[in-house]
Amino acid sequence: MNRSMIRYVMGGVLKVEGILLLLPFIISLIHNERSGLWFIPVALGSTLLGILFSLRKPDSQVFYLKEGCVSTAMSWILISGEIPSFTDALFETISGFTTTGASILTEVEPLSKCMLFWRSFTHWVGGMGVLVFLLAIIPMSGGSNINLMRAESPGPSVGKLVPKIKSTARILYIIYFVLTLIEFIMLMIFGMSPFEAVCSAMGTAGTGGFGVLNDSFASYSPALQWIVTVFMILFGVNFNAYYLILFHQAGKAFRMEEVRAYIGIIIVAIAIIMCDTIHIYGDAFEALTHSSFQVASIITTTGFASTDFDTWSQTSRTVLVILMFIGACAGSTGGGIKVSRFILAAKTFFKEISGYIHSKSIKKLTMDGKPVEHEVLRSVNVYFLTFLFIFTASVLMVSLEGHDLTTNFTAVAATINNIGPGLNMVGPTCNFAFFNPFSKYILMFDMLAGRLELFPLLILLTPRVWYELLHPSSRHKNKN
Amino acid sequence: MNRSMIRYVMGGVLKVEGILLLLPFIISLIHNERSGLWFIPVALGSTLLGILFSLRKPDSQVFYLKEGCVSTAMSWILISGEIPSFTDALFETISGFTTTGASILTEVEPLSKCMLFWRSFTHWVGGMGVLVFLLAIIPMSGGSNINLMRAESPGPSVGKLVPKIKSTARILYIIYFVLTLIEFIMLMIFGMSPFEAVCSAMGTAGTGGFGVLNDSFASYSPALQWIVTVFMILFGVNFNAYYLILFHQAGKAFRMEEVRAYIGIIIVAIAIIMCDTIHIYGDAFEALTHSSFQVASIITTTGFASTDFDTWSQTSRTVLVILMFIGACAGSTGGGIKVSRFILAAKTFFKEISGYIHSKSIKKLTMDGKPVEHEVLRSVNVYFLTFLFIFTASVLMVSLEGHDLTTNFTAVAATINNIGPGLNMVGPTCNFAFFNPFSKYILMFDMLAGRLELFPLLILLTPRVWYELLHPSSRHKNKN
Repeated sequence: MNRSMIRYVMGGVLKVEGILLLLPFIISLIHNERSGLWFIPVALGSTLLGILFSLRKPDSQVFYLKEGCVSTAMSWILISGEIPSFTDALFETISGFTTTGASILTEVEPLSKCMLFWRSFTHWVGGMGVLVFLLAIIPMSGGSNINLMRAESPGPSVGKLVPKIKSTARILYIIYFVLTLIEFIMLMIFGMSPFEAVCSAMGTAGTGGFGVLNDSFASYSPALQWIVTVFMILFGVNFNAYYLILFHQAGKAFRMEEVRAYIGIIIVAIAIIMCDTIHIYGDAFEALTHSSFQVASIITTTGFASTDFDTWSQTSRTVLVILMFIGACAGSTGGGIKVSRFILAAKTFFKEISGYIHSKSIKKLTMDGKPVEHEVLRSVNVYFLTFLFIFTASVLMVSLEGHDLTTNFTAVAATINNIGPGLNMVGPTCNFAFFNPFSKYILMFDMLAGRLELFPLLILLTPRVWYELLHPSSRHKNKN
Repeated sequence: MNRSMIRYVMGGVLKVEGILLLLPFIISLIHNERSGLWFIPVALGSTLLGILFSLRKPDSQVFYLKEGCVSTAMSWILISGEIPSFTDALFETISGFTTTGASILTEVEPLSKCMLFWRSFTHWVGGMGVLVFLLAIIPMSGGSNINLMRAESPGPSVGKLVPKIKSTARILYIIYFVLTLIEFIMLMIFGMSPFEAVCSAMGTAGTGGFGVLNDSFASYSPALQWIVTVFMILFGVNFNAYYLILFHQAGKAFRMEEVRAYIGIIIVAIAIIMCDTIHIYGDAFEALTHSSFQVASIITTTGFASTDFDTWSQTSRTVLVILMFIGACAGSTGGGIKVSRFILAAKTFFKEISGYIHSKSIKKLTMDGKPVEHEVLRSVNVYFLTFLFIFTASVLMVSLEGHDLTTNFTAVAATINNIGPGLNMVGPTCNFAFFNPFSKYILMFDMLAGRLELFPLLILLTPRVWYELLHPSSRHKNKN
């Protein structure tokens, strides 16, 4: 295990974190809030620790997948744990950085502006995923980036956009920033205050879900709700598509199977829920507005709410629960299992059926016209299995508290898929405060596991990794 | 498609069915019940139709996996649909033959003795699975049996017990019959009436779940409950184990990983539930009795109840829901996903984790000391995916009725895993009568799909298979 490299990476993360923490302090200055002062010592502490960590260059540049996973998982726990005064603060911060948006707060309006900003800002930082975040702060790790990328990429494959990963990162940054900016401006034009617009735009971009109002988006105008709906859907698209459009290959972007399936699922879900809720709202347009907003919010794992969807019929609620698991596209800021994994699973399924009917079929699975490697299919299958294990174990452990199955089931679904609200006791008008600390730690684990595509966090739990971290001598023995 | 072969197989099934239908008639004679008379025309009709179907020998002995799947699925629908007066009768019969035990009857005690016998008898016939059932009535299909076996075998692999499949079938028959007989005698010794004992023994053997009393097993003595508990567990064991014991290889039988895991899961589940329910019963032995009975009943997918487990705490109920999905051993009469599939899934999972840590591990998975073929692992993964699809689609369609998520979720879980009772509105004191016909047909599909290991039934749904069935000329074109 290359410990010095992990130390160096974490030093970089801490330095960036320190600088980022100054932003909410600036917001507090603008709004004349004294509570913003405490961001200063935390920012300073973080920066100093970061400098200390990265003082010595790493002994070796060798950086395998294992190191990538370990430093990712540790960085996330480090960032999120920055303000670990107690379980609830930790829960809220992890929920922010993992872009989950599950809150333990009953009311958010009494919070100071700088705190609200920080909550939404964590979404924005977390949203782009560890992918770009870590890529930017490890400028020296040459060819090893690809390993980190395998661990970080939010989905089966982000695609090799450009040969040089650093320039890819920069392009993704720009797309992300420009989209956020456009949403911010649009929200301002349609009547939001600058502060609410910046927080909402950051929450949408990161597909997070923390809002600045108690009722999330219910009291905003339909125009604002539609803007947010459209941008939630846009941030759930595979960023490869934007890259292709940017480089004048729009046709190719629109022919991406994942994007088509994603749009298709959204349309079908909206149609079902609209038909099912039209009697509640009495008005087709209002039903369309709310069903579109909720479908976009859940499938992209954002978690904003324009209405209390927990009062909808069982059919609509079941559709939403299914969307929770599907999630957004791979290579987007969204969470969930990812549309591309479901496409590959469905293709595997149909191939099996056709294998039974035509005894000798040896068709190879394709995606976007290219054959899918056996290794990719295997890892998709393993992902589903792993997801199932973590999910079941979490529901079992949360059930120790004795709440009903729907609450336990959707609380785990809402955290492991990085959504935020679930159903029943964790519905959109409720919060996660009532869980006991044990359940909260389980749910925090699920948020981190979901955001990190399960494996990096699981690896951090293995005794072997801890042994190697604590025994530097084992590094040489295990170089290969 | 070899249609003449499918016709011939179904003729054989109908003839056997005709003979079996005479048994409840004999019971009605013993108990002097007039209602038993209607079994006569049905038995005659079935036998005549069977003779008609098998009058002409099949044109060709070629019998591929496709034909195997189609004739299995059609035979089951044929047997179950024998008494198709209306949806409920069909539901009850499918529930019987698939050994599910989900009932639409509020009270079973007013039923005639011959009807109660027929219900339990369907379990017994269905229990051994289509495997042995079809193996015995296709005496001429030489080398093709192995294909049918792949479709029928209740689990990843029944193992090649003896080279000749016909003698394997006979040995499995004998084990099945002898175990049922021992249970019958034990139940008689401990005070059950002969009629109740034979019905209970057949229901246990088939891991079915239909009982003869309204309260299932709640009013029987602890001694009788323990006998049933032990036999439920025994019928959930991979029959390979008994075969090995029979041929003086008991050591090998006890070293079977699946059997060990199965026993381990049972012990852990009983321990959790016992600790959780001891305050309800006040008495450690009573808590042990009920938790053992329920754990055995659910993991073997039998579905008997010694107490209303729906009143237990959420923890115990969640443990039971998890057991529903695990199911019994492969090669047993039980349903569910099967312990061996979970073992392979768990091994795949740990292999993946270790692949992340030791970059170059190429350990091959083993089971019972032998390496597991890549094809087996792939089919296990596909099975999980397929199960997930059918499960999710079923829950969505049943949710159209508007009942709560726990009811919908456990109703589908209880049928696709061939258990019987679920939780909430389909709990052990309730029944499935309240569902509308649409939901009932979904649940019937799930029962059949679960019992036939998913694929044979799905294949029957493909347009291609129907095209080939209706266009005999296509047979020659598609011989390969």
